[in-house]
Amino acid sequence: MQTGRSTSESSTLTAATRMAGSIRMKLELRCVVQGRSRLGVLKGFGRTGQHSLEVPGCLLYTRFGTVPHLTQDTLHTLSNLPSVTQVTLSNIAEHQEVLEEFKDGFRKFAGLHDTVLYCSLHDPAAACPTGYITNQTVSVWGSGGRIELTVAKFMALQKAVQPDWYQSMADGETSQNNTSRKRVRKSVDRTLAHLDECLLVHQKSQELEGVEVFGVVEGGDILEERLRSARETAKRPVAGFCLDGLQTGAMDQTLRTQLITALTKELPEDKPRLLQGVGRPDEVLACVEAGVDLFESFFPFQVTERGCALFFSFDISPDPERAGRAPPAVLELDKQRDTAGATQQNGGLNLDQTQMTSFEINLKDKRYQDDFRPLVDGCGCYCCKNHQRAYLHHLLMTNELLAGVLLMIHNTAHYHGFFSALREALATDKLDLLKRRVLGERGGQTERKD
Amino acid sequence: MQTGRSTSESSTLTAATRMAGSIRMKLELRCVVQGRSRLGVLKGFGRTGQHSLEVPGCLLYTRFGTVPHLTQDTLHTLSNLPSVTQVTLSNIAEHQEVLEEFKDGFRKFAGLHDTVLYCSLHDPAAACPTGYITNQTVSVWGSGGRIELTVAKFMALQKAVQPDWYQSMADGETSQNNTSRKRVRKSVDRTLAHLDECLLVHQKSQELEGVEVFGVVEGGDILEERLRSARETAKRPVAGFCLDGLQTGAMDQTLRTQLITALTKELPEDKPRLLQGVGRPDEVLACVEAGVDLFESFFPFQVTERGCALFFSFDISPDPERAGRAPPAVLELDKQRDTAGATQQNGGLNLDQTQMTSFEINLKDKRYQDDFRPLVDGCGCYCCKNHQRAYLHHLLMTNELLAGVLLMIHNTAHYHGFFSALREALATDKLDLLKRRVLGERGGQTERKD
Repeated sequence: MQTGRSTSESSTLTAATRMAGSIRMKLELRCVVQGRSRLGVLKGFGRTGQHSLEVPGCLLYTRFGTVPHLTQDTLHTLSNLPSVTQVTLSNIAEHQEVLEEFKDGFRKFAGLHDTVLYCSLHDPAAACPTGYITNQTVSVWGSGGRIELTVAKFMALQKAVQPDWYQSMADGETSQNNTSRKRVRKSVDRTLAHLDECLLVHQKSQELEGVEVFGVVEGGDILEERLRSARETAKRPVAGFCLDGLQTGAMDQTLRTQLITALTKELPEDKPRLLQGVGRPDEVLACVEAGVDLFESFFPFQVTERGCALFFSFDISPDPERAGRAPPAVLELDKQRDTAGATQQNGGLNLDQTQMTSFEINLKDKRYQDDFRPLVDGCGCYCCKNHQRAYLHHLLMTNELLAGVLLMIHNTAHYHGFFSALREALATDKLDLLKRRVLGERGGQTERKD
Repeated sequence: MQTGRSTSESSTLTAATRMAGSIRMKLELRCVVQGRSRLGVLKGFGRTGQHSLEVPGCLLYTRFGTVPHLTQDTLHTLSNLPSVTQVTLSNIAEHQEVLEEFKDGFRKFAGLHDTVLYCSLHDPAAACPTGYITNQTVSVWGSGGRIELTVAKFMALQKAVQPDWYQSMADGETSQNNTSRKRVRKSVDRTLAHLDECLLVHQKSQELEGVEVFGVVEGGDILEERLRSARETAKRPVAGFCLDGLQTGAMDQTLRTQLITALTKELPEDKPRLLQGVGRPDEVLACVEAGVDLFESFFPFQVTERGCALFFSFDISPDPERAGRAPPAVLELDKQRDTAGATQQNGGLNLDQTQMTSFEINLKDKRYQDDFRPLVDGCGCYCCKNHQRAYLHHLLMTNELLAGVLLMIHNTAHYHGFFSALREALATDKLDLLKRRVLGERGGQTERKD
C-alpha cells in the first residue's frame, strides 16, 4: 500500500510540526574554527537517548551489519571507534520478509549489541546504476538485483530494521555531468515530497517512536537548487541532514566546497550535516572546513580491497615521544606518491574509486617483499604490532584470506585515528598543521593537484 | 649444490646412529584401547623441549602460517587448540630468498609466537599435480607455479624456515589406482634415499640442532611395500613417522585400515604416527583404531570454503547438563544427510574433497534463511554465541567477507572439540559410544555407506 502523494503541504507540515518536539538529537558545538569548521558533540540519540558522537566524525561503515572481514571481537580491539554503525537498505531490502519474521530488528539479527544503528539508502562503496528512479519510487541494488522502493515499502523496511536513525527516501540521481536543470529541480521536489510522506508514516508509527529522521539535501551542481533544497528540508522536523550528490567522482573539490559552504548557511547550527560518499582524507579536510560534521567510513574498506594500507601522517603532536604515531618515511614514499598522483589526473576527477590514492601504499608492490617493518611505525593496531610488510606482501601475493583481515584492521584504525587527530587539531587550533601533515609538505608535493 | 646419492648405506646409517641419541621427542602412552587405539602424550619437543601434545590429536592447519580467515587473536579465543602449527613447503618454497634474508625463521616472519612449528612437504587441502617427480627431485606447487626441490634445496629451505620438526623429503606419487608395483617400489626406495640424505645434511647443520625429523612411510596400496617402508624407516633415527599416500580419495577405508594396521606393527611404540590427508571424522575414528596418533586439521577449512558448518555430535557425557554440547537436531538433518550421502556414492571413494560430507550443514540452503538458532545449540564458539543461522545464510548469499571468518571459527572449534572428545572417550572406555554419536545412530543412518 502506498501513501498518497496528494496530501496537501499544509497538513503535512502541521503533522510534521507536531513531530518536531520529539527530536532529541542535538549537536552541541564546542567551537567553530575559521568561520565554518565545527567541533562539537552530537548528543541525545539512540533508543535510550544516552549515546553521543564527537564531530567532526564518521560513522562505522558496514555491509550487512559487519565491518568487512572483521568480527565484533576483532573490531573492538581498536580504539577511536564511532558509536554509530551504518547499515544500508541496499544490503538489507531483499531480506525484508526474514526481518519481519524475526521481529527484533536488524541490530539483534546481525549480532550487534551496544551500537547505535543508522540506516542509509545506498552503500557508498558500491556502484548504483542510474536511470531507475520514477516519481513514486527509488531503487536499491542488492545481491539479487534491483529492488524498487515506494515510500510505503521504504517505511515498512524501516519498521523491520528498527534503526535509531535513518536517512529519508531520496532521489539523488543528479551526479552525472550532463544532468539538466529541470532534472535537478525534479530531484529536489521529489526528495522533499518523499520526506513529507516518510514523516507522515513515521509519525503514525509506534515502532518508530524515538527514531530520528535525516532529511536529504539534493540539488546536483546547481547552487540555487542546493539552497532551495537545504532551506525547505530545514523547515521539516528532521534531526539532521544528509548531503547527497556531492560524492567523490561527481564533481571536483572546488565546486563541492562552494556548494557545501553555501548550503550549510541555510541549515540550523544545532543539527548535524552528514556528507555522503566522500572519504578521502584531503576531501574530508576540505569538507570539514566547508561546514560538514559527519562522514561515512567506507574509504578504509576500499583501500583494503585493493591490497593497500593507509599510510599518511596525521601527527600534530609537538611531543617527540609521540612523534612515532604515524610519520611516513618520506623518501620511500615519494616514488609511490608520484605514481599514485599520476593516476589521478583524469581532469581533476577521480571517477574510479577503485584507484589507489596518495594516502596509501600498495603492499603488492615487489619492494615490500623483503621489508621487515610494520605497515606504519608506531601504529598501535594489531596488524602493525604483530606483522611486517613482507608478510603482508606474501599473504597478498598468495591470496591468503588473512590479508584482508589484517589490512582492514590497520586501515580502520588509521582512518579513525585520523578523525581523532582532526578533532584534536580543531580543539588546539592546529588545523593548518594537520593539513600540511595529511597533504604532505614535501617539495613538489605541497600542492595536491586535485 | 646437491648432496651426492653415492653415499654408501653403511656410512649413512653410522652417521644416523650418532644422531639417534639426540631425539628428544617421545610418545608416552597412557593406554592402548582395544588392541590398537593409542592414548598418550607426545613430549619433549619444541626448541625448549618443554612442549607437549595429546594424542590422538591433530596439528593446527595453516596456509603460510595463518589459519585461513583468522588472526592469532581470534584463533586464541578458541579452546582445545593444538600446540603444534603446521606449515607446508608448497606455501613457503617460493619465498626462500626472503626468509634467508630475514634470518629469524618462519615462525617470527609470520608473527607466530608460542607455537611449535611443524613443516610438511605438501598442503593437504591443495591438489598436487602428478608426474613431476624424478630420481633426484620432488616438486611442490606454490602460487607462482612449480618449484623443484633437490635434497640440498629442501634442506636449505628447512634451515631458512627453522621449524621444530619437519617431514623428510618423500616421493609420494602412488595414489593413482593404476600405479604399478615397480613404481611403488621405486617410491619406497627413493623416499628412503631422500631420508638418508636429509639426515646426513641435518646432522652436519648447526642450525638444525634440536630439530626433529619425521620419516615418511610410502608403499601405495601394496602391503609388502608398506611393511618394507615402515621397517626400513624405523631403522633410521627419526622422531616419528608420516604415513603418506593413504589420503582421502586414494583408497577406501577398508584397505586403508588394513594397511595401517599392518604397517604400524613395524613401527616402535614410543614414536608418533602422523597420517597425512585424512580429516573426515569417520575416517579419523577408523584410523585411530588402526593405530594412528596424529592428523592434519585441514578438514574444517574445506568445510568453511564450501559455505558449510560442522554439525555432528560427539557428546559422550552422561551428564544431562552437558547434553547441549553438540546434539544434532535429528529430524532436521535427515534430509540433508541423505543428500550428502547420495553424493558420496562414487564407488565408495569421495575423490572430490570439495564435496559436502554428512558431518556438516550447508548454510547456503534456503531452509536457513529464517532459522534464528545458532549453528550448533550449546556450542561455545564466538560464532554460535553471537550469531544465528539466518544471519550466516545471508552473509553467504551476499558474499560478505565475514562469512568465512565466522564459519572458520565454528568449524575449527567443533573439530578440535571432536578430538578432545575422542581422547576422553579413549580414557573412559567410551569409544563405541562416540562412534555411534559421530556416525549417527538413527534408523537407516546407522550404517554409513563409505
